[in-house]
Amino acid sequence: MTSFDEDTAISPDGEVTLTDRWNGSFGVPNGGYQLAICVRALARLMPYPDPLLVSGFYLRQAKPGPAQVPASLLRAGRTMAFGEASLVQEGKETLRTTACFTDLNSQNKQLFTATSQPRLPPPDECVRYSSSAPGAPNIAGRFDYRLAEPPGWLGGQPSGIPSMEFWMRFADGREPDMLSLPLTVDGAPPAALELGIVSTTVELTVHLRARPVPGWLACRAVTRHVTEGYHEEDFEVWDSAGTLVAQSRQLCMILR
Amino acid sequence: MTSFDEDTAISPDGEVTLTDRWNGSFGVPNGGYQLAICVRALARLMPYPDPLLVSGFYLRQAKPGPAQVPASLLRAGRTMAFGEASLVQEGKETLRTTACFTDLNSQNKQLFTATSQPRLPPPDECVRYSSSAPGAPNIAGRFDYRLAEPPGWLGGQPSGIPSMEFWMRFADGREPDMLSLPLTVDGAPPAALELGIVSTTVELTVHLRARPVPGWLACRAVTRHVTEGYHEEDFEVWDSAGTLVAQSRQLCMILR
Repeated sequence: MTSFDEDTAISPDGEVTLTDRWNGSFGVPNGGYQLAICVRALARLMPYPDPLLVSGFYLRQAKPGPAQVPASLLRAGRTMAFGEASLVQEGKETLRTTACFTDLNSQNKQLFTATSQPRLPPPDECVRYSSSAPGAPNIAGRFDYRLAEPPGWLGGQPSGIPSMEFWMRFADGREPDMLSLPLTVDGAPPAALELGIVSTTVELTVHLRARPVPGWLACRAVTRHVTEGYHEEDFEVWDSAGTLVAQSRQLCMILR
Repeated sequence: MTSFDEDTAISPDGEVTLTDRWNGSFGVPNGGYQLAICVRALARLMPYPDPLLVSGFYLRQAKPGPAQVPASLLRAGRTMAFGEASLVQEGKETLRTTACFTDLNSQNKQLFTATSQPRLPPPDECVRYSSSAPGAPNIAGRFDYRLAEPPGWLGGQPSGIPSMEFWMRFADGREPDMLSLPLTVDGAPPAALELGIVSTTVELTVHLRARPVPGWLACRAVTRHVTEGYHEEDFEVWDSAGTLVAQSRQLCMILR
């Protein structure tokens, strides 16, 4: 079993253990990891196979350890169904998610796109950002990231341009699917690091636009608006066939 | 009382009447109008003044007429609070919203922006899209829209470029505020009309980044990814002082 599948496994009575393997900064389980657990809980009870859109609000800081994942169907319609799921630790809700599921199989053909796949050298010709980098959190060890050149923030010189493009895949070779994409969109170092900003996710919305084929994912993370209190990050994921498979936006509260 | 305030008024026991004045296509109350009602219901019980982010899932088609707006606090923290609210008609939930509130007053200074305010001639030198246009829905009568030139779709010649910039304000002169912005982001003709696409909102997420000052709002609506089944629309709102006050993204299901 892969680390992702192992660490998002939910018992029949809705119990999960958040491991520390997906910790981001400050030893907190990554928000996308938490979101993926809720999506997996919903997938068990939804009448359609594909998560189409999921929104998660991070009500409280989660921590590694046991959690409950109550999930319920809100509405099943003719072409889509809606549900909600939460993460609960020590009786308190840490994450509230709402989601919509459908069957994307016949509806995923790309008809129009105004942005293009990130232009990156082949993964083998890129540089790696790895878990051995200074200050890298645990989650960096779960992915293989490949960039055209080392990001400025990594060398202590933020570029001032909060935009990053890179290849990404699970380090243990697990292929991407609709269940793992909600983690992927939050699984890379944030683009705001190029502004020297450290922040935490308030809310994350993921649009899942097509089922990914196996292989590397080409990703683009961009922050366009920063105020004293908050910034957003947009994230796009393209599969190895060049199809946009996920778009996400999150709002982050700036810590420093 | 302005039409917006009148038509989003909620009784002490959580009753509201959806009027037909905000109907979009097909005689269905506009999604942003519905969302604004839920935000207003939440504003009454949240310990912070400003909606910061709201996400709404359109579970069922709403219709003009009475509705209930149950709302509850999910968590009140030191700097922000979370809540949920629904629209319910005839015992069935039509809209499920989750939101986060905070006090934006001291945190709204713009530090970085990667996009600029739409470049438009002054409103007086623009053309109007009005409720007297062929096929215009009721909601078009509630706003004053001003464009640099008439959109292609309006003349039956979609431009093929799903991007629109325009001025917007309430036709009755009501000034924008944090309660009206969730309507504004969904209150204009969709950019996908320039592709000849007609669609309906599945989910709408609004980031409210600053309190708007009075005056015209400069807006930009862009659709970047269209598949056979769905497209997204991003919407930005800039106030008359040139501050980005709202960013939204919605996922739409294509009808034809």
